[in-house]
Amino acid sequence: MNILYDERVDGVLPDVDRAALLQALSARLPDLEVLHQREELKPYECDGLSAYRTTPMLVVLPRHIDEVQGVLKLCHEFHVPVVARGAGTGLSGGALPLEKGVLLVMARFNNILHIDPAARTARVQPGVRNLAISQAAAPFGLYYAPDPSSQIACSIGGNVAENAGGVHCLKYGLTVHNLLKVDILTVDGEHLSLGSEALDSPGFDLLALFTGSEGMLGVITEVTVKLLPKPQTAKVLLAAFDSVEKAGRAVGDIIAAGIIPGGLEMMDNLAIRAAEDFIHAGYPVDAEAILLCELDGVEADVHDDCDRVRQVLEQAGATEVRQARDEAERVRFWAGRKNAFPAVGRLSPDYYCMDGTIPRRELPGVLQAIAALSAEYDLRVANVFHAGDGNMHPLILFDANQPGELDRAEALGGKILELCVKVGGSITGEHGVGREKINQMCAQFNSDELTLFHAVKAAFDPGGLLNPGKNIPTLHRCAEFGAMHVHLGQMPFPDLERF
Amino acid sequence: MNILYDERVDGVLPDVDRAALLQALSARLPDLEVLHQREELKPYECDGLSAYRTTPMLVVLPRHIDEVQGVLKLCHEFHVPVVARGAGTGLSGGALPLEKGVLLVMARFNNILHIDPAARTARVQPGVRNLAISQAAAPFGLYYAPDPSSQIACSIGGNVAENAGGVHCLKYGLTVHNLLKVDILTVDGEHLSLGSEALDSPGFDLLALFTGSEGMLGVITEVTVKLLPKPQTAKVLLAAFDSVEKAGRAVGDIIAAGIIPGGLEMMDNLAIRAAEDFIHAGYPVDAEAILLCELDGVEADVHDDCDRVRQVLEQAGATEVRQARDEAERVRFWAGRKNAFPAVGRLSPDYYCMDGTIPRRELPGVLQAIAALSAEYDLRVANVFHAGDGNMHPLILFDANQPGELDRAEALGGKILELCVKVGGSITGEHGVGREKINQMCAQFNSDELTLFHAVKAAFDPGGLLNPGKNIPTLHRCAEFGAMHVHLGQMPFPDLERF
Repeated sequence: MNILYDERVDGVLPDVDRAALLQALSARLPDLEVLHQREELKPYECDGLSAYRTTPMLVVLPRHIDEVQGVLKLCHEFHVPVVARGAGTGLSGGALPLEKGVLLVMARFNNILHIDPAARTARVQPGVRNLAISQAAAPFGLYYAPDPSSQIACSIGGNVAENAGGVHCLKYGLTVHNLLKVDILTVDGEHLSLGSEALDSPGFDLLALFTGSEGMLGVITEVTVKLLPKPQTAKVLLAAFDSVEKAGRAVGDIIAAGIIPGGLEMMDNLAIRAAEDFIHAGYPVDAEAILLCELDGVEADVHDDCDRVRQVLEQAGATEVRQARDEAERVRFWAGRKNAFPAVGRLSPDYYCMDGTIPRRELPGVLQAIAALSAEYDLRVANVFHAGDGNMHPLILFDANQPGELDRAEALGGKILELCVKVGGSITGEHGVGREKINQMCAQFNSDELTLFHAVKAAFDPGGLLNPGKNIPTLHRCAEFGAMHVHLGQMPFPDLERF
Repeated sequence: MNILYDERVDGVLPDVDRAALLQALSARLPDLEVLHQREELKPYECDGLSAYRTTPMLVVLPRHIDEVQGVLKLCHEFHVPVVARGAGTGLSGGALPLEKGVLLVMARFNNILHIDPAARTARVQPGVRNLAISQAAAPFGLYYAPDPSSQIACSIGGNVAENAGGVHCLKYGLTVHNLLKVDILTVDGEHLSLGSEALDSPGFDLLALFTGSEGMLGVITEVTVKLLPKPQTAKVLLAAFDSVEKAGRAVGDIIAAGIIPGGLEMMDNLAIRAAEDFIHAGYPVDAEAILLCELDGVEADVHDDCDRVRQVLEQAGATEVRQARDEAERVRFWAGRKNAFPAVGRLSPDYYCMDGTIPRRELPGVLQAIAALSAEYDLRVANVFHAGDGNMHPLILFDANQPGELDRAEALGGKILELCVKVGGSITGEHGVGREKINQMCAQFNSDELTLFHAVKAAFDPGGLLNPGKNIPTLHRCAEFGAMHVHLGQMPFPDLERF
C-alpha cells in the first residue's frame, strides 16, 4: 500500500556525509546510543501508519536532555533534517523517518517528574505514556482527560505534537485544552518554555501554536498537563436505530438539548457486526446504527441526564434504548467500540482509516453521501466514530491484492475528505496530517493560508530541518496536486520549495 | 499619571504625508467616514486606560468590510501604522492611538449574523457587545460564557484581541476556549479564516495564536463563538476569614477537593469595606477577607457541592459561611464584587489596577508579600480578584497630587508583577499587555523568547504596521529597561528595532 505518497522529500534533500556525522556524534556525545546498522534501523522505518516506510539514515536514543541538545546542534551544523519520534503509534505518518535524516527517539524520557494535587497538574517527560499519567494521578482521585484509543502505548510528547483527541474529548477537550506548559528545544538547541503554570500567558499563544505542529517547530522535552477530578459516576446508554441518518440526527438532538455527554460514539451495521463477532459486547447486530452515550458526573446529575437522553433518543426514532446495568456491562459496551478497528480489520485483508471532521448538523447528509460513494466505488465502508465531535472515522475495506482495489480505495478516501471540507469541516480530527494527508491540505487551505503557515514555520525553523515534508505542503506540491489557487500568479517563498 | 510610558513609538515612526493620505482615502473610499479635525479626534485619544493619551492622526469609521480592506491596502501603500479599536474598554492601552497612525474603529460592525442552536454557535461581527451575544442566545436557553466585568460595553472583537476572561472563566475558560473561527484581514488586506466550525483544524493552530495577539497580526472581521446551555441553577456561598492567608489557602483547598466552582472570588478588608459602603451588599465589614464561591449546574449537583464547599471552608478556618438565601441576595453578593473597582476608587484620588496571575498554591505567600510591600512603600493596596484562577487585581491607592506618590505607586506595581513572575506566574491574567506592561514583558521573557515573538509577528506583518509598540517589546527596549539577558552578545532582528 502506498497511498498518496511520493518520494519527493528524500529525493530533493541534499546528500549528507553520513560517516562524518557519525564520527562527530561519537566524538561530541560519546555516551549517546546511535543505531546505524541496517538491521538496527529496520524497526524504526515506520510509525502507526505502516503502509509508509523509509529506513532512517541514523537513529539516536538519547537519555539526557543535553544529549538531545547536542544532537540538534550537530544536525543544525551539518544541515541534516531531524524527525522526532515518541512511541511511534501515530496514524498519519508524522514520525515517518527520512533516508537522509536523523530519527530522534524520545522514548527513554519516561519519568513522571511531579504530581501536584493542589494545583491539579502533572509535570512529565515527553516519553511518558498517556495512561501512565492517569495511573500516577489516581491515588489523588485525579486523571488526565484526553484518551486516544492507543493510550496504553502512545506517549504524551506525541499527543502534544499531534494534538491528540479521544472518546472523551467532546466534554473534556483535545490535548491543547489540557496543557499548561511545554518545554522545547528549538532547531538550534535553544531551550524555550511555552505557556506557564498560570491561567494565561502574555504575548502570543505559542503553546497553542506548538500543540499539533507535528514536530515542525521544536522538540518537546517536558510537558505540564492539567489533571481533572475523576467523575463520581459514569453511565452508558446504547441506542439502536434502523438508519444511520436517524442516528446522525439524534447526535445533534442530544447536544441541542443542552447535554454534554462524556462520550458520544456511533457505529454502523458493518462495524457493529464486526465488533460483536470479535468482542461479544452484546450489541444488537440487526441495527443499522448504534449510539453509545456516556454521561458522567455526580450521581443525581447523571441520573437526570440519563432520563433526558433516553427521551431524546426515543423521540429521534431509536428502536431500542438500553442502559448498561452495571460497571461490567459498561466496560463491555466500551470494549466493543474501542476494539472496532481491529474487529473491522478481521473482515478484510486491508483497510484504510479516514479521520475527517464535520459540523454535527451535517452528519446525516454526509453519512448518506458516504453510503452512495461506497456503492459507486464498489468498496465496503464501516463507520465507527466520535459522533458528538463530528469526528468521523470511515474505514474503507479493500484487498490490495485485487487489481484496482487500492486505487479505488485511495480515490474514495480522497472524495470523502473533500466532502468533509466542502461542508465546512476539516481533513483531520485527531490523527494529524503527517505525510498521509499532505495533499489534502491543498484542498483545505488556499495559497495565502499556506504561505502564512510557511512563514510561521520559518519563524521557528528557517532552514526547514525539523520534520520536513509533513503537515504543511509546499505551494509547489499543491500546484502539482492541482487544488491550489495561486495568488496573483505569484509563488511566495520560493526558497521554501526545497522540500 | 504617566506610568511606565515612553514616547519612543511615535518618536521613531517615519513622518507621513497626512494630506496625501486623506486625499487618497476620500478618492478611493468616497463613502468612508474619516475624522480629521482636532475636536473630532479628541474622544478617541485613549481606551479604558485613560492615563495614556495620544491624539490619532486620523480616525476611520468603516461600515463595510471592503472599506476596512481599502483602508488597510492604502495604509500598507503609504506605510502608515494602523491601530484597530473596538469599544475602547481595554485596560492596558491596547487600542491607544498613534500620532502618526490611523485609528480603525470597528464599532459599527455590530450585527449578530447567525445563531445556530443545534451546533450551539453564534456568528457575529466584531463590534457586537459581549453581553448582546448572550441576550440573542437566551431564547434558545444558551449563553456565551466569558464575562469580563465590562461585558455591557466591550465588544467581541476586543475580547478576541485581548483573550478576555471574567468571573466565570475558572470553569468555562478564557475567550480562546470559547471560539471556533475568526475571520481576519491581514495587513495587506487579504482575507483569511482561522479555525473552522469543526472541532479541530489541521495545520498550525493560528486561531489560538491570533487570540490575544492584541491587534498585531490582523484585523478581525467576523467571529464564531461556542454557546453553552444556561445552568439550571446557581448558588453563592460567602465565607469570612480573619486573615487573607487563610482565605488564600481555602481557595486551593476547594479546587483540590475536586470541585470546579462557576466563580471563586476574593476580596480583602479594604475592598470589602469600600464595596459595602458603596453597594450595601451585606458583606461582613470586620472580616480580613471574604471568598465568594458560586456553584452552578443541575439542582441536586449544586446542592451536594454547596455542602462540600461549606465543609472545606469551615475546615480552612472560615469564621462564617453564608449561602445567599435567594436570587436577590445572590445578585447583591455579586454586585458588591462587580462594583469593587469603582468602590475602591471612592477611597482615593487615584488607583492603579494590577493584573498578575500566579499558581493557586502561591496565593497565601504572595498576599503576605503584597502586604509587606504595601507597608514598605507606605501605600494602601486593596485586593479583589479571581482567586480560583490565581488572577490577582491588587489596586494600589495613591494621590498623584502628593509629591512622590506616583513614583512609589509605579515602583510598588512593578515589584508586585516581578513577584508574580518569580513564583511561576505571569504579568497579565486578562487585561493584556498593551502599552501599559510592555516593559514588564522584559522580565517575563528572555531574548530568545522575544526573538521568536518578533519572528511570528513578522510572519504576519513584515513591515510592522499593525499596532506597533504594543504587546511585544523590542529587544532594544528591554536592554534599556535592564531586564533582558542578551543572548551570546547578539541583538537578533536589528531591523525590528524601528519601533
